[in-house]
Amino acid sequence: MGKGQKLYKKAKKLIPGGTMLLSKRPEMFLPDKWPAYFSKAKGVKVWDLDGKEYIDMSIMGIGTNTLGYGNKEVDEAVLKSLKNGNMSTLNCPEEVMLAERLIEINPWAEMVRYARSGGEANAIAIRIARAASGRDNVAICGYHGWHDWYLSVNLNSIGQDLSNHLLPGLDPLGVPKNLQNSVFPFEYNNFEQLEKLVNEQDIGIIKMEVERSHSPKNNFLQKVRSLANKKKIVLIFDECTSGFRETFGGINKKYGIDPDLAMFGKTLGNGYAITAVIGRKEVMEAAQDTFISSTFWTERIGPSAALKTLEVIEKTKSWERITLLGKKLRDGWLSCSKGQKVKITLNGIPALSTFNFQHKDNLKFKTFLTQEFLKKGYLASSSFYSSTEHSEKIINDYLIIFEEIMSQISDCISGLENIDSLIEGPVVSNGFKRLN
Amino acid sequence: MGKGQKLYKKAKKLIPGGTMLLSKRPEMFLPDKWPAYFSKAKGVKVWDLDGKEYIDMSIMGIGTNTLGYGNKEVDEAVLKSLKNGNMSTLNCPEEVMLAERLIEINPWAEMVRYARSGGEANAIAIRIARAASGRDNVAICGYHGWHDWYLSVNLNSIGQDLSNHLLPGLDPLGVPKNLQNSVFPFEYNNFEQLEKLVNEQDIGIIKMEVERSHSPKNNFLQKVRSLANKKKIVLIFDECTSGFRETFGGINKKYGIDPDLAMFGKTLGNGYAITAVIGRKEVMEAAQDTFISSTFWTERIGPSAALKTLEVIEKTKSWERITLLGKKLRDGWLSCSKGQKVKITLNGIPALSTFNFQHKDNLKFKTFLTQEFLKKGYLASSSFYSSTEHSEKIINDYLIIFEEIMSQISDCISGLENIDSLIEGPVVSNGFKRLN
Repeated sequence: MGKGQKLYKKAKKLIPGGTMLLSKRPEMFLPDKWPAYFSKAKGVKVWDLDGKEYIDMSIMGIGTNTLGYGNKEVDEAVLKSLKNGNMSTLNCPEEVMLAERLIEINPWAEMVRYARSGGEANAIAIRIARAASGRDNVAICGYHGWHDWYLSVNLNSIGQDLSNHLLPGLDPLGVPKNLQNSVFPFEYNNFEQLEKLVNEQDIGIIKMEVERSHSPKNNFLQKVRSLANKKKIVLIFDECTSGFRETFGGINKKYGIDPDLAMFGKTLGNGYAITAVIGRKEVMEAAQDTFISSTFWTERIGPSAALKTLEVIEKTKSWERITLLGKKLRDGWLSCSKGQKVKITLNGIPALSTFNFQHKDNLKFKTFLTQEFLKKGYLASSSFYSSTEHSEKIINDYLIIFEEIMSQISDCISGLENIDSLIEGPVVSNGFKRLN
Repeated sequence: MGKGQKLYKKAKKLIPGGTMLLSKRPEMFLPDKWPAYFSKAKGVKVWDLDGKEYIDMSIMGIGTNTLGYGNKEVDEAVLKSLKNGNMSTLNCPEEVMLAERLIEINPWAEMVRYARSGGEANAIAIRIARAASGRDNVAICGYHGWHDWYLSVNLNSIGQDLSNHLLPGLDPLGVPKNLQNSVFPFEYNNFEQLEKLVNEQDIGIIKMEVERSHSPKNNFLQKVRSLANKKKIVLIFDECTSGFRETFGGINKKYGIDPDLAMFGKTLGNGYAITAVIGRKEVMEAAQDTFISSTFWTERIGPSAALKTLEVIEKTKSWERITLLGKKLRDGWLSCSKGQKVKITLNGIPALSTFNFQHKDNLKFKTFLTQEFLKKGYLASSSFYSSTEHSEKIINDYLIIFEEIMSQISDCISGLENIDSLIEGPVVSNGFKRLN
């Protein structure tokens, strides 16, 4: 057993859930075998606690590092903040400079607030939107964090729960029960369902991911925008995951539909903690009339990292590059699986690509895939979040191994091999699920 | 007008509320004149955007930097994390090492979770406690952040609001109205009030600051602990502000009373964003049954900074030093004001000292004090949060100026001078208020 797995055994005794992020649990990749902890990360390489080197062909810090790990320019900006002091009784000027920048990039927005986690940015946006609309009820579509307001969906007495947005069967334990029937989910691309919700539940806010598993159909986003206008509803786009992956700004730019509020996270600081809520002045000003305040939102590393990250993103047009690389890998996945007669389905935008085996042994096949890649020095799962540090060569090398593994999976499907005898440990756990 | 005030004018147009923390608004110190932003901070010195140097005799980053700004050892640990990579698909081992350390320091606790802001650590603790107790209702005493669960107190139809804990007259705009009557405040040292609350409101959680403005009287903490035991209530001590200022750990150690959960923040990373929830296993394990997960809680700077900060705190016994310095300054404040016949009252523990003028012109006197200190190169208000980088000489030098200012205030009180003609700009805003 490697040092990482040993440490993880200890972690599970000290930390309920083992890790701070469900998606980074070793059980989500390869139970008992996943290296679990890193000593070093640079470019697309990650070193585990035994000093073993891997190429990250999986989630790249869950999509935080679109410029690769340890981007030189971003790290130098952070280093400067570190040398000049991260914190003081006075505020850091970078937060104002970043606000200007975010508004330049997203011209529909006029004001900005920050947090240091995506969940908290979501909670700020909801507070501001409720204050602005004067109504409490929210219609949601997609993943929006762990806070009470969102998980309260699973308390509802009627209708759908978060099964298709977050996790199936999640018990909203510890979420106050009187939040029941305040937040309601709707399916992506199901405008009629949303319209019905709005008419029946006094909805004051619509909060959604612009694009997750599938693209908008039948002018879905336009219809949502019109409905929000008609009913004086605050429309929030959660761009924590999608931002800066397909455009220089929100993915909403691709569709030409502007929200009233949006959040950015993940990519914004290339691995340093910073999230932002941006919005139209009329809505954002409601933050003046309520209390939203936190000590560590004043630290300097977050906005310094974001300023430099945005500069590098713009300069390198990284969204184009990571989309191209994502497409190349998807093409490889599809042609390998077609060649081997293994049915897979693709989800997500190119820079956040995921596949599933269309087979009852989906999870076993995934386990085998991660197991075999790990042996060859790759962190790989059924998701690939591309970065500018991935290269065509890296993807080609990966696809050669992918082909070999798919060939064995093909043999399992046709009965020539037995997947249970190929898997050397427990089967992987299922991850998030969002609306398809 | 200095560069800082110019930038702040711009900030107010871009950021609702101007800053991320209410307590860092320039209006809370000296409207129109406060330097507002820093370019550099080191030790107890802060440089503004014009390069002007100040000695910080005020809130030291709102109490984050008990080891002074830019502590060499802590910064070197952060630099190492920066060089080896702050983020990856794998987890950082420092989070496990920090969990071990926090439990060693607070032996009543067995498990740990992290966040990157105090408000979020509070929200995590409340979620876990509600999940563990199976009851939603909370009794609170003190300041616990900006989240819905806490501000909902101000929605209550009956009884007290947060006037004496947070801010008087705060409108809980945007907090969902169905959270009404789920959280109830009680006065510090008023055990009968708490007992009545517990009996009448099905309280499942008691959440309080162990010591804020005043010390516990009549075995208050013991009685609270016994009541919690008797009624199977989860007792939470919010040590975000008090932790590591009077003991090596929670201030609860001073009184020998253990909670079921506690939070640490502010001092934990000496200016780097890291907060922790620690607790007994039986309670913390409830986190396994609910969803608490965030991407940026996996970054490496926070736990790396905390590990080194704890090492330096232990090695230097910084809690003794900052308490001694706080006492010295309080003695100075008291003897100066007595000598000048200016009545003041003191609040807080020595390392977090605040005074108020017992006079109708309290805010005007405060404005004058900050104005005069600023001219002499000090950031000073009516609060002093001590750090190990403050020295006896710095305090003595400060007190000489304090004496001169108090002499003028004394003249205002006796009618020899007019405070309105001494103040060169608008009067300072009132700050937080907590239970006295």
